[in-house]
Amino acid sequence: MAVYVVGHKSPDTDSVCSAIAYAELKKKVGVDAVPARQGDLNPETTFVLEKFGFDVPELVTDATGKRVILVDHSEVAQSLDNLDKGEIVEIVDHHKIGDVTTPNPIFYLNMPVGSTATVVKKLYEDAGVEISKEIAGILLASILSDTVILKSATTTDIDRKAAEELAKIAGVDDIQELGMEMFKRKSELEGKSAKDLLFRDFKNFDMSGNKVGIGQIEVVSLSLLDNFKDALYEEMQKLKEAEGYHSIFLMLTDIIQEGTELLCVTDDPEVVKKAFDKEIEGRSVWLPGVMSRKKQVVPNFEKAFSS
Amino acid sequence: MAVYVVGHKSPDTDSVCSAIAYAELKKKVGVDAVPARQGDLNPETTFVLEKFGFDVPELVTDATGKRVILVDHSEVAQSLDNLDKGEIVEIVDHHKIGDVTTPNPIFYLNMPVGSTATVVKKLYEDAGVEISKEIAGILLASILSDTVILKSATTTDIDRKAAEELAKIAGVDDIQELGMEMFKRKSELEGKSAKDLLFRDFKNFDMSGNKVGIGQIEVVSLSLLDNFKDALYEEMQKLKEAEGYHSIFLMLTDIIQEGTELLCVTDDPEVVKKAFDKEIEGRSVWLPGVMSRKKQVVPNFEKAFSS
Ligand SMILES: [Mn+2]
Ligand SMILES: [Mn+2]
Repeated sequence: MAVYVVGHKSPDTDSVCSAIAYAELKKKVGVDAVPARQGDLNPETTFVLEKFGFDVPELVTDATGKRVILVDHSEVAQSLDNLDKGEIVEIVDHHKIGDVTTPNPIFYLNMPVGSTATVVKKLYEDAGVEISKEIAGILLASILSDTVILKSATTTDIDRKAAEELAKIAGVDDIQELGMEMFKRKSELEGKSAKDLLFRDFKNFDMSGNKVGIGQIEVVSLSLLDNFKDALYEEMQKLKEAEGYHSIFLMLTDIIQEGTELLCVTDDPEVVKKAFDKEIEGRSVWLPGVMSRKKQVVPNFEKAFSS
Repeated sequence: MAVYVVGHKSPDTDSVCSAIAYAELKKKVGVDAVPARQGDLNPETTFVLEKFGFDVPELVTDATGKRVILVDHSEVAQSLDNLDKGEIVEIVDHHKIGDVTTPNPIFYLNMPVGSTATVVKKLYEDAGVEISKEIAGILLASILSDTVILKSATTTDIDRKAAEELAKIAGVDDIQELGMEMFKRKSELEGKSAKDLLFRDFKNFDMSGNKVGIGQIEVVSLSLLDNFKDALYEEMQKLKEAEGYHSIFLMLTDIIQEGTELLCVTDDPEVVKKAFDKEIEGRSVWLPGVMSRKKQVVPNFEKAFSS
């Protein structure tokens, strides 16, 4: 039976490209592996796959009866439906350790680095398998996407070194240029509904028993979002009611200005105060220097909810 | 602040020696690491530490305010008390993926191999750090202990290769002889109380919301336990009442005959039926070929409890 390699819900470039690259590695070592995705691709990911010549992976949303390798997540809430009715055979990730458990010992590698792609590159090296030009391209793109062109607080020396080496293999002369091309695609908002934007990169968490959703929209300038904010806030309110969230937060991240406006819909504004030592003004709070959900937002809320 | 490297409660040789060896590796790469243990050493571990010249590690049972690296477990129930009041900075293990979670991304490597020592050996190689003669000795002993001298179902080619290489470094000419020396120590029951024996290698699990304890005593002949069975069964019953367990199972494993008599104290004998397709006779069930709790017992019960 084939094993599906799949990233998190609301797939981002790292989730999709790491799944493709890791499935390719597994195939090279004799495993019948198939890359998959849990949802629609964002415009950045579409651009990256086209640029480096890859097809859109198969859509898979339910684990029932399937063997799966999870990449780029280890939270049940972000994973396939009915995860307990499938078999998890590996996990490769770079997030906090989530609540996925297994009945059997499996391979699980989580590294505190900027992208799952960085971990996948290491696994190619461990296995002694050469990285093709095309795979190097999508791994590089994943690193640039997740680390906001190597500027995010999550960026490590391992990511910088990996990006350099991958750029050489992929024949990418200017990393910065590729990164800006990608982020322009990510910033394209025309024709998008507020609902599309809210769910483009949205993750669910269980924080001390509370259902919390945290989305992120990265743009080259916050002003691009001016016409969307009312509608986004409304969608957040609707979603909160419909799905019984304690809180929904949406990070509007300006990658040039290097900061995040955090839109907040919550039963308890105190958690924002506890998390960032700042009061919500109107419906949001400005967080200078904050660009990483994983490193600068989720841990703060985890702490705030548990205290 | 120093970081403590610590294995599971009721420490076995792998838990103690992997903690010592991994702390040594962290020190070599500039981290202020201290090996620790959660409880008294069993006679096998005492023998191994003496043979290769190591002190008994510091006793640590509470994580409050401490930075910790967990080795050889990833279950909250097997870990330090107040784990949520400390900081987990790494996990190195070879068991099923447990319920330990973290607020931040950390290094976590779990490999489906016979011992944590095998994983630690790999991490020495990844770091390019030479393994000393003494460290090779305790890593080899850990592999032999966890894999019942490379005979258990958990043994992989990676373990066999690691054991061979470590034996060379440690100057151990006869792996089999070292293993039998160790298991003779493990089989020494004289002067031990039933309670001592029950807790020597005892692990707690949360199985679909039920508190389940599974212990194991490995002996070179089951007949050595004849005079203990009544008292062991009584201790299991007492413990079940006192601590509100759903079930307590004790594996009496004959490493020569290669099989396990499973003593059962449970609210629902059906789970044993479901797990092994065999009825309890009297107070136990004989499981031929079963020697590994991790691979041949825990997954079966996990499945039985979840169905
Ligand atoms: Mn990622
Ligand atoms: Mn072990």
